[in-house]
Amino acid sequence: MKIAVYPGSFDPITLGHLDIIERSAKMVDRLIVGVLVNQAKTPLFSMEDRVKMIQDLTKDYGNVEVRAFKGLLVDFAHECKATIIVRGLRAVTDFEYELQLAQTNKVIAPDVDTIFLTTNLKYSYLSSSTVKEIASYHGDITPFVPEEIVEKIKEQYKVDH
Amino acid sequence: MKIAVYPGSFDPITLGHLDIIERSAKMVDRLIVGVLVNQAKTPLFSMEDRVKMIQDLTKDYGNVEVRAFKGLLVDFAHECKATIIVRGLRAVTDFEYELQLAQTNKVIAPDVDTIFLTTNLKYSYLSSSTVKEIASYHGDITPFVPEEIVEKIKEQYKVDH
Amino acid sequence: MKIAVYPGSFDPITLGHLDIIERSAKMVDRLIVGVLVNQAKTPLFSMEDRVKMIQDLTKDYGNVEVRAFKGLLVDFAHECKATIIVRGLRAVTDFEYELQLAQTNKVIAPDVDTIFLTTNLKYSYLSSSTVKEIASYHGDITPFVPEEIVEKIKEQYKVDH
Amino acid sequence: MKIAVYPGSFDPITLGHLDIIERSAKMVDRLIVGVLVNQAKTPLFSMEDRVKMIQDLTKDYGNVEVRAFKGLLVDFAHECKATIIVRGLRAVTDFEYELQLAQTNKVIAPDVDTIFLTTNLKYSYLSSSTVKEIASYHGDITPFVPEEIVEKIKEQYKVDH
Amino acid sequence: MKIAVYPGSFDPITLGHLDIIERSAKMVDRLIVGVLVNQAKTPLFSMEDRVKMIQDLTKDYGNVEVRAFKGLLVDFAHECKATIIVRGLRAVTDFEYELQLAQTNKVIAPDVDTIFLTTNLKYSYLSSSTVKEIASYHGDITPFVPEEIVEKIKEQYKVDH
Amino acid sequence: MKIAVYPGSFDPITLGHLDIIERSAKMVDRLIVGVLVNQAKTPLFSMEDRVKMIQDLTKDYGNVEVRAFKGLLVDFAHECKATIIVRGLRAVTDFEYELQLAQTNKVIAPDVDTIFLTTNLKYSYLSSSTVKEIASYHGDITPFVPEEIVEKIKEQYKVDH
Repeated sequence: MKIAVYPGSFDPITLGHLDIIERSAKMVDRLIVGVLVNQAKTPLFSMEDRVKMIQDLTKDYGNVEVRAFKGLLVDFAHECKATIIVRGLRAVTDFEYELQLAQTNKVIAPDVDTIFLTTNLKYSYLSSSTVKEIASYHGDITPFVPEEIVEKIKEQYKVDH
Repeated sequence: MKIAVYPGSFDPITLGHLDIIERSAKMVDRLIVGVLVNQAKTPLFSMEDRVKMIQDLTKDYGNVEVRAFKGLLVDFAHECKATIIVRGLRAVTDFEYELQLAQTNKVIAPDVDTIFLTTNLKYSYLSSSTVKEIASYHGDITPFVPEEIVEKIKEQYKVDH
Repeated sequence: MKIAVYPGSFDPITLGHLDIIERSAKMVDRLIVGVLVNQAKTPLFSMEDRVKMIQDLTKDYGNVEVRAFKGLLVDFAHECKATIIVRGLRAVTDFEYELQLAQTNKVIAPDVDTIFLTTNLKYSYLSSSTVKEIASYHGDITPFVPEEIVEKIKEQYKVDH
Repeated sequence: MKIAVYPGSFDPITLGHLDIIERSAKMVDRLIVGVLVNQAKTPLFSMEDRVKMIQDLTKDYGNVEVRAFKGLLVDFAHECKATIIVRGLRAVTDFEYELQLAQTNKVIAPDVDTIFLTTNLKYSYLSSSTVKEIASYHGDITPFVPEEIVEKIKEQYKVDH
Repeated sequence: MKIAVYPGSFDPITLGHLDIIERSAKMVDRLIVGVLVNQAKTPLFSMEDRVKMIQDLTKDYGNVEVRAFKGLLVDFAHECKATIIVRGLRAVTDFEYELQLAQTNKVIAPDVDTIFLTTNLKYSYLSSSTVKEIASYHGDITPFVPEEIVEKIKEQYKVDH
Repeated sequence: MKIAVYPGSFDPITLGHLDIIERSAKMVDRLIVGVLVNQAKTPLFSMEDRVKMIQDLTKDYGNVEVRAFKGLLVDFAHECKATIIVRGLRAVTDFEYELQLAQTNKVIAPDVDTIFLTTNLKYSYLSSSTVKEIASYHGDITPFVPEEIVEKIKEQYKVDH
């Protein structure tokens, strides 16, 4: 059985992330979306909210599970008995950073390999930060995130103001 | 009438910025230099100083105006009735970031388009941060900024020490 | 009056090219599409066919003209009394090459400047060569070129086989 | 059952290619190495030799098959009933080209997706052309290709001289 | 006599850094490793510890000296009577940043030139930050740093927890 | 004694090449400019002419020698007893290609190392091909090549027409 993990902060999840989840879930027997507990930053959504949102959005896929994790990605992959890490690739600067991560992970955990999927063209320049910046100025975020979470994001910025 | 905005922090304005202003002012009927109110960082110069400096430096161009703005760039463009955003391109990492901005702006404001000018070779690796770093160690900044503002920048760093 | 030239081989013109023509025509008073006589390669379409096709596709724009040219681009710009060269930017390797051209042109003709537009995301990885490769194997080219020329391209490859 | 194709010219196969075959064979149920009939160039080895060499080198993997193909890659994938295309990624210029191919393939065959594996660091700047250039000057190619084919490559260049 | 400086934070020194030191020491008459006092960040090791560690690791090279420095790199080079700055190059984003530094330094100190060495493939995606991240989660750092300092780094993270 | 080789086609030599020669000659005891006999292409100038031109242009440097070479660069370096290869770096695509060469050379000749110098900004997008293209249309090449060879290049294109 091929098990893969797809790690990220997902703060919030975008249509680009969802596209990667949908496509990679077709390639493996089990896909575990790993939501990173990032201690350094104040997230927009709590860990629980992020996990819950992705669970709701992926509940119709039979082989997708969502889990929080902290620490090294390769340790999380080992815990999940995953041999594959899935990453989305957008642009050149992404590529360099991702390559660095993949090569380092390969050295510290030779039994786990990384595959890259290219982001759908429609979402190729999209990031969670972009979504947050637009939302913070009350711009229209509907082209960028699943419609189910548009209101949830807007509410966060009502609270802030 | 073609109206364009050229946004930036301009903290401080460099010879590279001035070159883009001069060249793009020739291409459009009206050019509005938009000085970004960046809430996150402590600027070297106040917004008023930055606007005033650019106004002084561009007073001989008949069709250049300088304004402060905050919020989304496309909202500022709409306010200015501009249909064109002007950006300078230096290097590859710039390029990726600029492309991301341009594509996102195109989605949220399809009536505004972005044009890129390549930075003059002489200034192709110049940035405001470089100028500030050199000035903070009392290095020579005359090759990088308009001579009219050299003393103003030096004074900021006298105050700091 | 702002006059711009948009040069290329256009062998054949793609939806990406047409998108750049449409957007840049809005930015200038007059846009001259320059179809390059490339002596080194055997084109798919003759110069006359390429000029005619683009004329047909742009006949509803009031300010677009199509002309063949050979020799240096800056000489063609001078002939057209253009002060602006328009180029579409797709990816990083494009960017480097385009920067090289723009900088060289700036040195040999300081009165002509180059502006770059980013290709629409939908067409961001599209090129005439891709279209020709797909057509040569009788693949579906309708997502890539204006529908008016789909049959013309197919015919070229019937002749070849 | 997940079937993947790994296409290339493999003229000759390098240790970098073999590394990608070994790693991707672990990720899917069946891996089909597709050896491209490239009409434009004179290959070093005939199609039959290239297929035979890869078959010999991969005979211990239970789920790897080697086939020649010509025409569009997505047509070959369809023939193989593959839903995955595997590609190795080396450097930035690779990345751009590969992205272009992947995006174009996605448009003409939405049921086939591309995954990228990063080349092992040891082989990260290796290509078949490099091997041929070194061999043509009778340099040492043993660090770059499987030892089983070192003599076969050397012989090709004896014939030439 | 050719004197070169090799500047960095070296917090901690990695096998990649050591490889650059070893190779560049062969190219010049005297190599001065400059350890940057970076006021903005809290380092893992104190300046004294970093200088001491590199001195111990390079004591067998006859022509390597280690010094702390603050301020502009070109001022440090002048102090050392160095005419060459040595930098290691890893990836594209490095390259852009390094080019910017080199060009700026060339303008403010035309008598000092920068040479780049490519990082050994084995260490090509290694950085001090990666080492620190892995160490902070008690992962294995032995493939990345000189064995002499492995324990010293581990101790820092014992203290932290 | 540090000996370095600076290889290239130099067909023709540009001001960018001359800048690299001048700067690297200061860094080593002896610099050997290696003019590559490229069998595949028809050069603009014969090997003899290219060697002679560079000898004339560098006759005032005491430590520069010019030689023709064919075959592998590392074999040429060995013949010259050089331990350093000098290369100029212009843009990102250069960088990738150069890195590939440097890494391959390091594997086949571990005793020879490559150093990179960044091209002077003024010549950063200049290449021999650009010079030839401009000259072929009788454009002005004086900003790009040493004045001593401007007429020689022009003559080549008179002969062609």
